Amino acid sequence: MVPGHELVGIVTEVGKDVTKFKVGDHVGVGCMVSSCGQCDACDKDVEQYCTKAVWTYNSLDEEKQPTYGGYSTFMVAKEKFVLRIPESLPLDGAAPLLCAGVTTYSPMRYFGMTEKGKRFGVVGLGGLGHMAVKFGKAFGLEVTIISTSPRKKTEAIDVLGAERFLVSSDKEAMKAAAKSLDYILDTVSAAHELDPLLNLLNVNGKLVLVGIPERPFQLPPGQVIFGRRLVGGSLIGGLKETQEMLDFCAEKNITSTIETISIDDVNKALERLAKSDVKYRFVIDMESLHRSSL
Amino acid sequence: MVPGHELVGIVTEVGKDVTKFKVGDHVGVGCMVSSCGQCDACDKDVEQYCTKAVWTYNSLDEEKQPTYGGYSTFMVAKEKFVLRIPESLPLDGAAPLLCAGVTTYSPMRYFGMTEKGKRFGVVGLGGLGHMAVKFGKAFGLEVTIISTSPRKKTEAIDVLGAERFLVSSDKEAMKAAAKSLDYILDTVSAAHELDPLLNLLNVNGKLVLVGIPERPFQLPPGQVIFGRRLVGGSLIGGLKETQEMLDFCAEKNITSTIETISIDDVNKALERLAKSDVKYRFVIDMESLHRSSL
Repeated sequence: MVPGHELVGIVTEVGKDVTKFKVGDHVGVGCMVSSCGQCDACDKDVEQYCTKAVWTYNSLDEEKQPTYGGYSTFMVAKEKFVLRIPESLPLDGAAPLLCAGVTTYSPMRYFGMTEKGKRFGVVGLGGLGHMAVKFGKAFGLEVTIISTSPRKKTEAIDVLGAERFLVSSDKEAMKAAAKSLDYILDTVSAAHELDPLLNLLNVNGKLVLVGIPERPFQLPPGQVIFGRRLVGGSLIGGLKETQEMLDFCAEKNITSTIETISIDDVNKALERLAKSDVKYRFVIDMESLHRSSL
Repeated sequence: MVPGHELVGIVTEVGKDVTKFKVGDHVGVGCMVSSCGQCDACDKDVEQYCTKAVWTYNSLDEEKQPTYGGYSTFMVAKEKFVLRIPESLPLDGAAPLLCAGVTTYSPMRYFGMTEKGKRFGVVGLGGLGHMAVKFGKAFGLEVTIISTSPRKKTEAIDVLGAERFLVSSDKEAMKAAAKSLDYILDTVSAAHELDPLLNLLNVNGKLVLVGIPERPFQLPPGQVIFGRRLVGGSLIGGLKETQEMLDFCAEKNITSTIETISIDDVNKALERLAKSDVKYRFVIDMESLHRSSL
């Protein structure tokens, strides 16, 4: 079993009942490979909340067989769980859209964090965060990046085009920025406090969590009541919305910023990941497996 | 200085620039008597979030003079902060609408908890909670009351017309009710846990807080992420929406369930309040002050 749930490739064969795809099509598979198809969540195109969803790796399918993940040279998947990658997008830069992309796009749509001119804060500038910045720019939002790493400021502003950069440990700057944001997407999975983030939100502000720290957050009720704020959460996105997101990326020319590596470099990449030394996703070229010494 | 911010009465005199009211009109004053009129919150008719809002008692007005509250036989108020009480509503039953009413009505509207047929949970069956039940019924929701007091069940179902009653300490019943609600309005100000309430919410469920316990809640991030739920908060309502709520109450024939007392009984009423022995609000008839021995 291997991990891998941001997968792209080219169709080499289709089953006899397949109607959506043909050999040669650019396609992708994300975090899910199946769901029950009958529950309320499936009915409403949010298969990610189906209690019988089958994940792309380390999950059990309908026949109780394990799923094996996508770091492989080929993969068999059900038509419904295969996404079309628009031809205009490079395959490697499109791969992270299948998880990092839709995980940030979906809550922005669902919670209404897309109104042009609104002020959008992105907490954490990694694989998810940098996608949130790109979507924020595409929706016409004014983007503030909130990070623990002052060294990311130049890149955030000069390369990603964020309007503002806040260092979350800088109490003066955080205080001066009180009520200066309408929306916040929090992509951080490490332990952190909600209170200083809620302070950044104006009346009617929205803070949506997509990272999952191990321990519960502390939520002071006054922080939502005095200002009619909300704290929401969101998990990836359904198939229909993932396709919509890919088409939106094609229209706006959005891809993930990546570094493509061969399979031989995977251990080195893991070491660099542990040091946050990647802008912003490693993509493994699985073709390299054919010429690998591993 | 006296408290009191759910005030109704009859206009006895109007200032020369007043256009909305005339002598004899039925009117009310809620929690606010002024705001800056210039900020974003005031612009958007959510004066309750104006940082310069002047509260009806124990607050300082624009001239730094204290506000004295409404448990009195007359009151002077600015036209903008005076609400029209529809003639069809009894004055005493309408009084609690000005705080308890709008505090529950406003979040139901703002957070979209009004879709006919949806399942609505009300946590706490007191002054606020019983109003939430009445609004829930008026919107065509299926109402579940969640309470710590099993003794409130008969009243909740037979008198208020709730479909279901859950005792929050009954772990089996709470477990069996997992995912059975679409919305929850939490009116409880005493310390309690959010986690068991979030378990009751289906995918896309909404939990809105209007009570303010002293200590922060624990919010497990998975409880909002796996199910795309939200935890929101809301404070009373703006003037425009308070009027809208009063007109809605007239249309649907909704008032607060009350017990009217004379001022001589106020200390006895406070003792009963401390024991939650009131259905559901005491209203003081201030006329009684003229014949009081106090």
